[in-house]
Amino acid sequence: MSEPLPASCDLMLFGALGNLARKKLFPALYQLDRAGLLAENSRILAIARRDLSLEEMRAGLIENLKAAVADDEFDPELAASFAARVDYQLLDFTDTAAFSELNSWRNSENHLIVYMATPPAMYGEIARNLKDQSCCTARTRVVVEKPIGHDLASSKVINDALAEVYDESQLFRIDHYLGKETVQNLIALRFANNLFASQWDQNHISHVEITVAESTGIDGRWGYFDKAGQVRDMIQNHLLQLLCLIAMDPPADLSADSIRDEKVKILKALKRITPDMMGQYVVRGQYAAGASNGKVVPGYLEEDGADKASLTETFVALKVEIDNWRWSGVPFYIRTGKRMPEKMAQIIIHFKPAPHYIFDPDQKHLANNKLIIRLQPDEGMALKILTKEHGLDKGMRLRQGPLELTFSETFGAERIPDAYERLLWEVMRGSQYLFVRRDEVEHAWRWVDQIIQNWHDLGEPPKRYAAGTWGPVASIALITRDGRSWYEDV
Amino acid sequence: MSEPLPASCDLMLFGALGNLARKKLFPALYQLDRAGLLAENSRILAIARRDLSLEEMRAGLIENLKAAVADDEFDPELAASFAARVDYQLLDFTDTAAFSELNSWRNSENHLIVYMATPPAMYGEIARNLKDQSCCTARTRVVVEKPIGHDLASSKVINDALAEVYDESQLFRIDHYLGKETVQNLIALRFANNLFASQWDQNHISHVEITVAESTGIDGRWGYFDKAGQVRDMIQNHLLQLLCLIAMDPPADLSADSIRDEKVKILKALKRITPDMMGQYVVRGQYAAGASNGKVVPGYLEEDGADKASLTETFVALKVEIDNWRWSGVPFYIRTGKRMPEKMAQIIIHFKPAPHYIFDPDQKHLANNKLIIRLQPDEGMALKILTKEHGLDKGMRLRQGPLELTFSETFGAERIPDAYERLLWEVMRGSQYLFVRRDEVEHAWRWVDQIIQNWHDLGEPPKRYAAGTWGPVASIALITRDGRSWYEDV
Repeated sequence: MSEPLPASCDLMLFGALGNLARKKLFPALYQLDRAGLLAENSRILAIARRDLSLEEMRAGLIENLKAAVADDEFDPELAASFAARVDYQLLDFTDTAAFSELNSWRNSENHLIVYMATPPAMYGEIARNLKDQSCCTARTRVVVEKPIGHDLASSKVINDALAEVYDESQLFRIDHYLGKETVQNLIALRFANNLFASQWDQNHISHVEITVAESTGIDGRWGYFDKAGQVRDMIQNHLLQLLCLIAMDPPADLSADSIRDEKVKILKALKRITPDMMGQYVVRGQYAAGASNGKVVPGYLEEDGADKASLTETFVALKVEIDNWRWSGVPFYIRTGKRMPEKMAQIIIHFKPAPHYIFDPDQKHLANNKLIIRLQPDEGMALKILTKEHGLDKGMRLRQGPLELTFSETFGAERIPDAYERLLWEVMRGSQYLFVRRDEVEHAWRWVDQIIQNWHDLGEPPKRYAAGTWGPVASIALITRDGRSWYEDV
Repeated sequence: MSEPLPASCDLMLFGALGNLARKKLFPALYQLDRAGLLAENSRILAIARRDLSLEEMRAGLIENLKAAVADDEFDPELAASFAARVDYQLLDFTDTAAFSELNSWRNSENHLIVYMATPPAMYGEIARNLKDQSCCTARTRVVVEKPIGHDLASSKVINDALAEVYDESQLFRIDHYLGKETVQNLIALRFANNLFASQWDQNHISHVEITVAESTGIDGRWGYFDKAGQVRDMIQNHLLQLLCLIAMDPPADLSADSIRDEKVKILKALKRITPDMMGQYVVRGQYAAGASNGKVVPGYLEEDGADKASLTETFVALKVEIDNWRWSGVPFYIRTGKRMPEKMAQIIIHFKPAPHYIFDPDQKHLANNKLIIRLQPDEGMALKILTKEHGLDKGMRLRQGPLELTFSETFGAERIPDAYERLLWEVMRGSQYLFVRRDEVEHAWRWVDQIIQNWHDLGEPPKRYAAGTWGPVASIALITRDGRSWYEDV
């Protein structure tokens, strides 16, 4: 059984010539079209400030698609018919009067979707300028990208501006991690499998690891990144969202608000990290020169455009505690950084060992089962269980045998949709379950703000780590202090 | 860490020219030698009633090894040096006086192992004849094969005769299923993995299946088999042993008696099957003509030498209940038969579904996790879990993704030792944990005797099933009556 095709929609895309639109949104829309998932009359209005003819814009779009999608997925005919869905509107986003020009494009039989692929500072202004246009109704859906502010206060300003015009039920805040198939799979894994559901608590789980590692550095965005840092850029959104999906209580149903209510409960239950806890719970790192993929690379402070005095973190490791009934006493060790040895994202659930151990004493360290959920590369999962070693003279020697499920291997070469395809599809369906609600954004900011404030108050510089390593040695100490270690697949 | 090599032993093999010795015991001893696991001075005395010269016997032995082991495992030089360990003794097992000839062969520095690969009716006589010989001491280990009798009473006669001469701690009763690596792996799987250990009870498991299917028929042993039948031949020993290993409480340690104490507790807790329960709990089948591996094959009553009036069962399916705290309300459906569609042995643990179901209602039938333990073919295990189906228009559709562990694939082409290699090795080590204790034999007989008695009293003939099928339709009804079905991997 497949879900029905969403009704036709008019998608107004602000910032249609920007990076996000070029790299992610147009390719995702093309893929939806290719899969037959765009309703016949769905149309797109590319809106930007550059003076381009429709022909130029469409030619550029097709060129871009050709570069952005896989060779065997690019079909010139389909690309042309897709481009024919796209119109172009030159618009100064600050020119209120000019917005009336959008009305004429609008086909009132279609759902209206407004996608703001612009700097967040413009969200409020665009919303206000749209407000009085006939093309904007109570049924309009509005998609916005992170960052929603750089702290709680500034996020409120943006969210308030959006709320002046749109109801929360119309707002689709993107965290593209929620669009990843493996991330959604966490919901199926946790709640469709009682083998896991019945053990998903402090009685059965000793601790959880979440690692999101990038091998790249700053990619020429030094100035932009330096204002944010890894906590704002990755922890406040992606890693806390992953943590919520792992930690939340089972929702009573799969409705958007049932799921988001449960996520908010987790965000509210995160133990506040006070200044005196910083040494034990938080490691801030900044990469120094080193080697990445076999090449010598500069340190963060030597990158083009760098301010040599920057204290911005490019790595952070946290020990997170959740003060609720399910997770009391179960630390979540989370870390994310740039210039790590590899691009990798994984979640590891460490189950507690059996209460009594009857095998070789020197193998006791193997005794906890682990569920490994790989988000990338090679999306999949593995359950580490112990079996008996073969061989006559091995007695009851144990060895770790993974029960492996690599999606690409198990289910053949089926295509895994990009996160933006999933998210755009859900917007068209009007389903908010993969989008972040205002209270989630705010509780997440409230929790990370204190960490950033503590850094500011304590004034300690970030710890250096060589590019191409797993972060400062202090991040090893963070977990070994508890008698544990970051998981390494050996 | 490997276990130390057992001390040198003198193995007296009664019935050294028989089927078991030829097909299993000598090849297993050769493999132990090949693996460097026979102590340098270990020797074998082949004992039989045929008048053969030592040279003839050794030549025959080498011929036999060549046929019995894999081509790349046969090494003529090694076979010759192995054969040099073997002496031959012509002996009439009933001639008490002749047993004194065994004394001269004996090297008293070696452990003495007596292996009775003879009809069980001779065990007592051999034991008594050995008793007075100087070669037999309180440290002698005695290995005997099933069947230990054909009911409780006759098993007591055999066990009493052995007990006159040997202490229980000297007796190694073979059930070769216990020598299979996958069967021993059940112990590691259950007790080294808390993920399973903590769910191994009526709170988490709904039911268990055990299937041991043979594709062959009677193999020319009609007269022998017809006196036994499938319950005596397979249930009393192999299937009840598997059931015990799955159902037993965790032993406090891995000592032979800790494990066997727990197995006996299960055998004692098996719910007795009374005459009025027979219709619901027991299906007796006998194969009719049909097709096997693409060939037309005769029915059981048409086999060579068949008595057309035989009521002997070649198939049995049972619903077994265990009246204890761990398993109350959890049926074990077990079945075994000849002339099934394939040679296959597997155990399936059906876990209960989660208490609440939030996914597509039409997928609810998928909702219980299953652990599949394959004994053959392709020894391994699979855990059936549900993941999210990929594909944008699939929403939260589930699909079953197996977490697979096939030993040969995961651990490379390492050789899995034959059961007899393992068992002979354990005898040499003096470890009884893979051997059946007298009280196990007796409790198993006590339980199966009542079923056989019920059949006798009720006088109903076995239900016919076509060769090459999964038994009588009544065996399907046995499980579907409870709203379940025999597992089929689809």
